[in-house]
Amino acid sequence: MHCIFYPQSIVVIGVSEKPDNLARTILLNLRTFSYSGALYAVGRERGEVYGVPIVPSLDEVPDGLDLAVILVPAPLVPGIMETCGRKGIRHVVIESGGFSEFSEEGRHLEEQLIEIARRWGIRFVGPNCISVVNLDAGVCLPFAPIGRETLRFGPVSVVAQSGGVSITYAEMFSAAGLGVNKVVSIGNKADLDEADYLAYLIEDPGTRVVCLYLESVDDGRGLMDLARRSEKPIIVHKANRGSASQSIARSHTAALANDDRIVSAAFRQAGILRADTFGDAVAIAQGLVLPPVRGDDLVVISRSGGHAVIAADFVDQYGFRLAPLPEEFVGAVRSLFRADVIAPTNPLDLGVIFDFDLYARIVEGALRMIRPDAVLLINTYSKTEAEGAHHLAHQVDRIVQETGMPVALCMYGEGGIARELIGQVSIPVFLDMGQAVRALAASRDWHRRRTWTGAMPEGGPGRSLPIDAPDGPLALCREYGIPVAPWAVAEDPDGAAEAADGLGYPVVLKALSARVVHKSDVGGVVLGLRDREAVRREAEAMRARVLERVPQAGDLRFLVQRMVEGGVEVILGGKQDPAFGPVVMFGLGGVFVEVFGDVSFRVAPLTRADAEEMMEEIRGKALLRGARGRPPADREALVEAILAFSRLLVENPSLAEVEINPLLALPQGVVAVDARWVG
Amino acid sequence: MHCIFYPQSIVVIGVSEKPDNLARTILLNLRTFSYSGALYAVGRERGEVYGVPIVPSLDEVPDGLDLAVILVPAPLVPGIMETCGRKGIRHVVIESGGFSEFSEEGRHLEEQLIEIARRWGIRFVGPNCISVVNLDAGVCLPFAPIGRETLRFGPVSVVAQSGGVSITYAEMFSAAGLGVNKVVSIGNKADLDEADYLAYLIEDPGTRVVCLYLESVDDGRGLMDLARRSEKPIIVHKANRGSASQSIARSHTAALANDDRIVSAAFRQAGILRADTFGDAVAIAQGLVLPPVRGDDLVVISRSGGHAVIAADFVDQYGFRLAPLPEEFVGAVRSLFRADVIAPTNPLDLGVIFDFDLYARIVEGALRMIRPDAVLLINTYSKTEAEGAHHLAHQVDRIVQETGMPVALCMYGEGGIARELIGQVSIPVFLDMGQAVRALAASRDWHRRRTWTGAMPEGGPGRSLPIDAPDGPLALCREYGIPVAPWAVAEDPDGAAEAADGLGYPVVLKALSARVVHKSDVGGVVLGLRDREAVRREAEAMRARVLERVPQAGDLRFLVQRMVEGGVEVILGGKQDPAFGPVVMFGLGGVFVEVFGDVSFRVAPLTRADAEEMMEEIRGKALLRGARGRPPADREALVEAILAFSRLLVENPSLAEVEINPLLALPQGVVAVDARWVG
Repeated sequence: MHCIFYPQSIVVIGVSEKPDNLARTILLNLRTFSYSGALYAVGRERGEVYGVPIVPSLDEVPDGLDLAVILVPAPLVPGIMETCGRKGIRHVVIESGGFSEFSEEGRHLEEQLIEIARRWGIRFVGPNCISVVNLDAGVCLPFAPIGRETLRFGPVSVVAQSGGVSITYAEMFSAAGLGVNKVVSIGNKADLDEADYLAYLIEDPGTRVVCLYLESVDDGRGLMDLARRSEKPIIVHKANRGSASQSIARSHTAALANDDRIVSAAFRQAGILRADTFGDAVAIAQGLVLPPVRGDDLVVISRSGGHAVIAADFVDQYGFRLAPLPEEFVGAVRSLFRADVIAPTNPLDLGVIFDFDLYARIVEGALRMIRPDAVLLINTYSKTEAEGAHHLAHQVDRIVQETGMPVALCMYGEGGIARELIGQVSIPVFLDMGQAVRALAASRDWHRRRTWTGAMPEGGPGRSLPIDAPDGPLALCREYGIPVAPWAVAEDPDGAAEAADGLGYPVVLKALSARVVHKSDVGGVVLGLRDREAVRREAEAMRARVLERVPQAGDLRFLVQRMVEGGVEVILGGKQDPAFGPVVMFGLGGVFVEVFGDVSFRVAPLTRADAEEMMEEIRGKALLRGARGRPPADREALVEAILAFSRLLVENPSLAEVEINPLLALPQGVVAVDARWVG
Repeated sequence: MHCIFYPQSIVVIGVSEKPDNLARTILLNLRTFSYSGALYAVGRERGEVYGVPIVPSLDEVPDGLDLAVILVPAPLVPGIMETCGRKGIRHVVIESGGFSEFSEEGRHLEEQLIEIARRWGIRFVGPNCISVVNLDAGVCLPFAPIGRETLRFGPVSVVAQSGGVSITYAEMFSAAGLGVNKVVSIGNKADLDEADYLAYLIEDPGTRVVCLYLESVDDGRGLMDLARRSEKPIIVHKANRGSASQSIARSHTAALANDDRIVSAAFRQAGILRADTFGDAVAIAQGLVLPPVRGDDLVVISRSGGHAVIAADFVDQYGFRLAPLPEEFVGAVRSLFRADVIAPTNPLDLGVIFDFDLYARIVEGALRMIRPDAVLLINTYSKTEAEGAHHLAHQVDRIVQETGMPVALCMYGEGGIARELIGQVSIPVFLDMGQAVRALAASRDWHRRRTWTGAMPEGGPGRSLPIDAPDGPLALCREYGIPVAPWAVAEDPDGAAEAADGLGYPVVLKALSARVVHKSDVGGVVLGLRDREAVRREAEAMRARVLERVPQAGDLRFLVQRMVEGGVEVILGGKQDPAFGPVVMFGLGGVFVEVFGDVSFRVAPLTRADAEEMMEEIRGKALLRGARGRPPADREALVEAILAFSRLLVENPSLAEVEINPLLALPQGVVAVDARWVG
């Protein structure tokens, strides 16, 4: 991978002197960014562009070059790859389109590429990508011209499942003053994929923050694993969330939408910062280059009271608190100015102070005396105050460097004045309060993220499950330590009565048959039977009812179960997600999951904290705490059940779906009443 | 009001030659914006600023000037107001702070101002405001210097409950290319308030869009009334939503937070477009200056497939649809270019086309052949394509003017290139797709808004309600045509039995006593009594139980009610909101309202459409449609009950709160089972 980002020599293939030739732009970009390695160009006709001679065959360039960049019609690419292999070139960027994203024929060509690359030991980017940029080495390979001043060098690296988006991110991180380090558009990822680039970038010394743009997640578990091992923050902008985007995404990069709630849960578990929009990703990155925000206490200082009110709404929205101002600080502020006109409130309204130097002193005083987790400074300035506003920004920059504490500087006024500061100061300059508070929240969330140390099991011991046994799911739950209401299986009414005696009354009687899917619909469930005779009589009646409606149910048996009453019905569901593997779902049962969809997700295996968070994330969580005069549910027993269910899922990957519904959350303990699985 | 925005003569009071004098900046701003009326200045010492002589007394300026602007310490203001009155000045802007927002003494001064103004017939802006701007007349009265190029002249007028926010909005609407017409910061609104300004602006020929920034809504009903009468769109950015903002807002402009859900419902009813942030308000205004978006069908055209995927997520989020592309259009696009490389999908990905002139032709073709409700064009360009990108923007501008159809042009690339276009083209230039789709949604919502023609009743006929009668609420419901489960009140067990015979069985028996608030807690409710004897016996037992627990309940009587079973429990609540008057709340009963807060609000009186929307807005609406195998609820009967409840609230303003809980929504009809009120 190092040869792709730091090649000592590059050959661009597909170059001509014609003005509309795209490959020549690659050479232009390399010149623009002062690439200092050796450059070669191959094209149909001899010539020269940007001082690089064009030769008609790859055979005319030296063997063993570090990197080849190919931009020729798709059908020609396999032949060129073959030559690359023969010439000892082991790293290739294929920018040409017309492969699997486009047609069946293209898919076939792409398979050829993979085969040739395997044979020669070539690793390649693309095809169908806009390229690789590494400002740390003057490498700039897009086929669209990139202005030198458009890209700023900095700590953010970008990996994008779209060439256009990779360029937009590079431009936006640059315009925000952060700057980019390495940028790669992954195209069809026939060979190298997002995980490969991510693995490289989390070790890359030049990269401090990685931003991924993805339209699909194929190996979600691999992505989580990498993110968990990363010391660097990883921002993922996962688009293609809903129904409208799916049709275009399929044709674009063959991306199928993942279940968005599972994606969010998985990212959270792995400490990935999910961005919703371009602006959101930029704000997150801005927060991450500030000193860390370690808690929820903010001090907001604003020149405008109205801006302070709006800021306070954002403080609420992002879960921050406005720290009270200690007397010492208020006194110090007042001593700087007229004693009586500054109200000792947070947000602190400096409307009556016109001297920006005092603002800097107040910010410094707030950091040193209050020691909040961050300060948000909102400066509204007029055009004539440009110099003062600039000076203030420099002072705040110095204060941040000296104290090592985060200050989000947000400027409202003529936009050009604030934009001039970008690059002059090392801290971000926010033009929007929402972005500023979002940035602080991202820093807080990153530094608070759970470090998930447990290794991710590959799968279970592969036990063979009695997938056809009607009480198999209950047995499996019990095996994993989840309490189950005692049950027995009986062949006939007498056996059922016998079993009920053994279980103790009252009991529930259920019809068991591979032919009966919805027991209740055929009269196959009777509750609250209180003695032996009732069980026998009801079993006889049930047999008659069920057989009348489902004549094929010759296998009919009876499940007798001790009846449990009270408690809150919850549901525990699990499935094997194609991208993330075993996933656990938790929610309140019945109408809450069916109508409200009030459920939370986690990728298994779960930590105790995950299980606790799952209970906190549902809207109906108050019911577990004992709303409406009921006793609270046994949270500890619920946590244990969720963790046991997680183990069950991880160790039995052959189960496509498992569901305990209902699991009764009682004041003491939990009891599974019914369970299902799909093998 | 006209004299405030279009004064022929202005006197500024509080001016001096000192550089840090704030009032002199007002004269500077008037010069900057080439105010052409007569200018006078009053200050303690004679002198001259910006060519205007300073005189030491108001008596030295002519009588009957149109407008006085006062910026002197608060205690001096009443005296100056008095002189204004004597000098025949009838319009004043008081920019000084130090009034009710600051102290008790200030409040007293403010009351003096009001008294003086009443006496002389003076109308005034403020106090504690940053001022009035009218670019249509060169009027620019802020005490902070405003650069001529900072403000662009245009169709948006701003009314803000914060001086700083008024300036930020003026700058932001200008920077977005929309431009501002009139701007007023309302300060403490001791005399003129937001309703006065709004009433003026909705008649003002120069204003096409009004943007209000509010931290509190005092007369919500008045605001709704004005908005409903307005032919112009009104955007309201209502801040101060949550807990953190309340403390600052109180000290800032004494604003108490309104119930945010009621605010949203009321705005929606009145056709007010609610903005959440500065950027949101700007996007809404940008949408409103485009030709109207009349429906949900969008065509998205993008140069980058990745941007198209992100756009499609926004299309979903804002409730738009991606219109299918007809064969005629796809054929036309292909004929412009190579036949095979354009996939006939919406979003249309033009990645392979480098000629921006073709983009314009495709946009025009899409408008004419598909006739969608709007087109979103996303152009990603490099620095070297600046000229082409500019040319495309001009062509799109022309197309919008010629077709009268809306195209949202969104540009991604070096930001300066797009910003240069602002002011050169008449359409908005978006730098963010989310903003672009938001803008289109705002236009759609505005043009689809319900025109609410019914007059807003001032109150009811003022009937005297038997507020102490324990069955008064049920009787009142019945009187308004809401079906109530038949009931009777009985003095003793025999009477109860008698009453039950009359009602028919089964019945419910309830204890009635002014001393008993929670009947169930004291054994005061018995369900399902099936015969006369059971009623008599249970009534005896209930009397003993209740009196044992509540010995003061000497007034104990019995309510016997026909028992109704089945259906979905809903709740209808009503209250007199201090800002919005009678407000109706609707939701599912029990845990859904208590734990999920799943309710919707409307300001009464309601239209039929309001009542229908209320049922659609709750998350649990599927339960009313008959989820889980139940029959659907009788929607028509529910609508009638909601409308009747609305009439009840409007006609009985003496009721502070009323609640029907539960109202049973049956497959046929509805039945109120219990009701409460607070007089």
